[in-house]
Amino acid sequence: MNFEILQERFFSLRSNRMFELFVVAVILFSALVIGAKTYDIPENVLMVIGWLDTAITFFFLIEITIRFVGEPNKRSFFKDPWNLFDTLIVVVSLIPIQDSEMALVGRLIRIFRVLRMVSIVPELRLLLNSLIKALPQLGYVILLMFIIFYIYAAVGASFFVDINPVLWGDISIAMLTLFRVMTFEDWTDVMYETMEVYPFSWLFYLTFIFLTTFAFLNMVIGIVVNVMENEHAEEEREKAIAEGQITIEDLSNQINELKAIVEAQAKEKDRL
Amino acid sequence: MNFEILQERFFSLRSNRMFELFVVAVILFSALVIGAKTYDIPENVLMVIGWLDTAITFFFLIEITIRFVGEPNKRSFFKDPWNLFDTLIVVVSLIPIQDSEMALVGRLIRIFRVLRMVSIVPELRLLLNSLIKALPQLGYVILLMFIIFYIYAAVGASFFVDINPVLWGDISIAMLTLFRVMTFEDWTDVMYETMEVYPFSWLFYLTFIFLTTFAFLNMVIGIVVNVMENEHAEEEREKAIAEGQITIEDLSNQINELKAIVEAQAKEKDRL
Amino acid sequence: MNFEILQERFFSLRSNRMFELFVVAVILFSALVIGAKTYDIPENVLMVIGWLDTAITFFFLIEITIRFVGEPNKRSFFKDPWNLFDTLIVVVSLIPIQDSEMALVGRLIRIFRVLRMVSIVPELRLLLNSLIKALPQLGYVILLMFIIFYIYAAVGASFFVDINPVLWGDISIAMLTLFRVMTFEDWTDVMYETMEVYPFSWLFYLTFIFLTTFAFLNMVIGIVVNVMENEHAEEEREKAIAEGQITIEDLSNQINELKAIVEAQAKEKDRL
Amino acid sequence: MNFEILQERFFSLRSNRMFELFVVAVILFSALVIGAKTYDIPENVLMVIGWLDTAITFFFLIEITIRFVGEPNKRSFFKDPWNLFDTLIVVVSLIPIQDSEMALVGRLIRIFRVLRMVSIVPELRLLLNSLIKALPQLGYVILLMFIIFYIYAAVGASFFVDINPVLWGDISIAMLTLFRVMTFEDWTDVMYETMEVYPFSWLFYLTFIFLTTFAFLNMVIGIVVNVMENEHAEEEREKAIAEGQITIEDLSNQINELKAIVEAQAKEKDRL
Repeated sequence: MNFEILQERFFSLRSNRMFELFVVAVILFSALVIGAKTYDIPENVLMVIGWLDTAITFFFLIEITIRFVGEPNKRSFFKDPWNLFDTLIVVVSLIPIQDSEMALVGRLIRIFRVLRMVSIVPELRLLLNSLIKALPQLGYVILLMFIIFYIYAAVGASFFVDINPVLWGDISIAMLTLFRVMTFEDWTDVMYETMEVYPFSWLFYLTFIFLTTFAFLNMVIGIVVNVMENEHAEEEREKAIAEGQITIEDLSNQINELKAIVEAQAKEKDRL
Repeated sequence: MNFEILQERFFSLRSNRMFELFVVAVILFSALVIGAKTYDIPENVLMVIGWLDTAITFFFLIEITIRFVGEPNKRSFFKDPWNLFDTLIVVVSLIPIQDSEMALVGRLIRIFRVLRMVSIVPELRLLLNSLIKALPQLGYVILLMFIIFYIYAAVGASFFVDINPVLWGDISIAMLTLFRVMTFEDWTDVMYETMEVYPFSWLFYLTFIFLTTFAFLNMVIGIVVNVMENEHAEEEREKAIAEGQITIEDLSNQINELKAIVEAQAKEKDRL
Repeated sequence: MNFEILQERFFSLRSNRMFELFVVAVILFSALVIGAKTYDIPENVLMVIGWLDTAITFFFLIEITIRFVGEPNKRSFFKDPWNLFDTLIVVVSLIPIQDSEMALVGRLIRIFRVLRMVSIVPELRLLLNSLIKALPQLGYVILLMFIIFYIYAAVGASFFVDINPVLWGDISIAMLTLFRVMTFEDWTDVMYETMEVYPFSWLFYLTFIFLTTFAFLNMVIGIVVNVMENEHAEEEREKAIAEGQITIEDLSNQINELKAIVEAQAKEKDRL
Repeated sequence: MNFEILQERFFSLRSNRMFELFVVAVILFSALVIGAKTYDIPENVLMVIGWLDTAITFFFLIEITIRFVGEPNKRSFFKDPWNLFDTLIVVVSLIPIQDSEMALVGRLIRIFRVLRMVSIVPELRLLLNSLIKALPQLGYVILLMFIIFYIYAAVGASFFVDINPVLWGDISIAMLTLFRVMTFEDWTDVMYETMEVYPFSWLFYLTFIFLTTFAFLNMVIGIVVNVMENEHAEEEREKAIAEGQITIEDLSNQINELKAIVEAQAKEKDRL
């Protein structure tokens, strides 16, 4: 059997929608039932799932081997981070889960087995790529949020430490308490407690909530729309180039050409 | 009486804004009062509402029959999923609600009766269409969220199982607990409990909240804006075609035509 | 003193930024201190605030009278809903607040006094206008949410009524409980209760939360972006018309003109 | 050593990505460990961090001095608010933190030390600028929210004062309670309490939640998208001007020139 045909068959099977759905279903089911003792699942169902799960790992192993063999330049294969990712996932998934189920190694292998979904569903890679793209800008947002939190925590830890040292003991504890306030988790209990000593302390909480909610919303939405507009603009540009669309520049060139012709005619007439 | 006139009259009544409002009001009122024992509603009001409700179902039955009779190709009538939907709703709504009110059948019939609103308000169909359009992309978001949840649940179930087996007993229970943390529902209770054993476990919760909130926001907003931009672009394109708007391509053609004329003149002169 | 000069002076005072800020501050302070018994505010401060508050109402009364007198067509004055609004606010604000503070009339007058802010800050009218514009579309979203709630309430009331009749007694009570679940308010307590009888009932809550959150986000964002894009497009169109911007249509006309000239030349030459 | 070279070296060091990361790490670590008594950090680590922290402040001091000396116009240096900000931060950071750790002065100095991050990370200034730009429009949103809150608080304080005076005692307390309802913090407890007396009071809470959520979402998103569109449009305009892009106006001018040439030719021919 020809090697290229084999490669192509594996690729077409991998891209098949139904096969993708089947693999995702087996991975999901396998991830959930193993270790789920609360639901009584018949022993033989578990065994079949286990076999299917192992079969999928071997399918991935064969598929990635074929991809590697088919690659003319072996070095450039591992320059693609997704190839590295796929290889790591498959290699770790091959390790059998030990009997001692609670072991950390077993947990780690399970996580890698779930990550096989990223290898089979190309849309998940797109989503992950767009998330990773937005992360650096998110870093600055987190830094700004940290400064806001720190200022309020310094104030809170100064005034409220005697009211409740568990919540306002030092600056880092106060920051955790403020994060709790930001998520609205029983924040009125925290507020009512300090309002008994400082009746105007609701101003502290309300300004904090307004500031963080507004800053967070403002920046996250800003980043998302920004990333999307850039992608959209790039897409448009690529499409315009690919389709050889007529631009205003082309029009301008056409008019200039026409002008040259008319002027050439005029000159010739003058010569006559 | 002419059949086409009858058909037209039903259609115009159905499209009438006041009639639509009246039907929606009756369906809403009828859906809420039946079975609401806490509010004392006079017996005769209930009876009138019941009659009006039945009258609306019969109106729908007649209307859909006329639409079906008026359709030249009977087969293509049921190819439109909304026609199938309307027919199913009307047929099930015709079944009287049994005396045994708690019966599952009664509940099901009530749900179908409420769905008559989708038949009468065209804007609801538009909204449903746009929701259904966005669903497949949502599927990938849910898959990615599942992977994030699974990784954190595997870690959580390994470390916290001895602290509180009710919350961290196995991976599937830990995932439910993490969903609770994601909705900020008493999440600090869960955190304070594990912080007593692992003082740095707040890092686990904070990174999880940041990751899921950011990923969720990022992706849902991304999908919504994406779907909307596509719809908007399509609308623009359709409008441009429909109104015979002049495009840059048309301009280019005009200039080329002009060039041909000028060149033809030049050639003729040369010939002379 | 000339009447028109008076009118102009009132208008310029009303548009003055500092005056606007002063009026807003007095209205806010007056609205909050009257009836706030918890904070000890000196008697004479209250009196000054009360006088300033009355003075502002009289300023509005004079201002609106001047506007009314200055209007050439008295009937068209009351056709503008904002003029009607301003008049109503001023007239009701003139009624003194009774001694019996708890009286409903007193509360109503206070609300009208706060609404004087809408009369003095033009940006508030813009915000209110844009909100009112978005309301009809919101109506359809609420209708769709009602249907989703109704379906889940019918299912919930059928299965969970025996577990907790206070939360799932009938469909309307179940809808209120579901609204509570949607706001994540102690929703896990509701869920854990039903999970003891139906271990898979978490599916009911999770699908409900996903559906409503997604539908809500999808539609509200959709409406907002939609309204904004329309406003933006309208603005652009108006600007283009106002500034006499050159459009592609103008270019096409220019080229056609040029073509006519060239062709006229060619014909003339032929005639020669 | 030449002064300009020194200035350039400081500037290039300050712009260096690795140096920026190092400075941010030291500031963050220093801000968190000082005063955090719960974690046992070795004495010598604390000392090294303290030294590095002081070194960074002196680096900033030298850097800003060089910037000031290098500025030809000393007055314009302090006209830039960011220069003023940097100077203030460095000067206050130089004050040593007193032994009496709980003192307000110590807290204030710590806040200023954290703000050094804004001096070193230029992206934080961009984020702060965009936040400050959006603030005035946010003011109007807060004013509108205040009016909505006030109306509901006036109604709530009238009807519910006898049910729970702690929550509905006067209008300002009722507004705080309504803010709690808006954040969904144990809002059902508040509702169930009043529903026992007024069974239809859920309407009060539901309309309030819908109104505030919708108004808030509508306006915040509106503001964000507005600010971003303006920035985007400005960017586009600047780019178009900078790159000398050909606009429709240029095309129109080109066609007019061509027309003038053709007409001149026609005239000349007529003259002949």
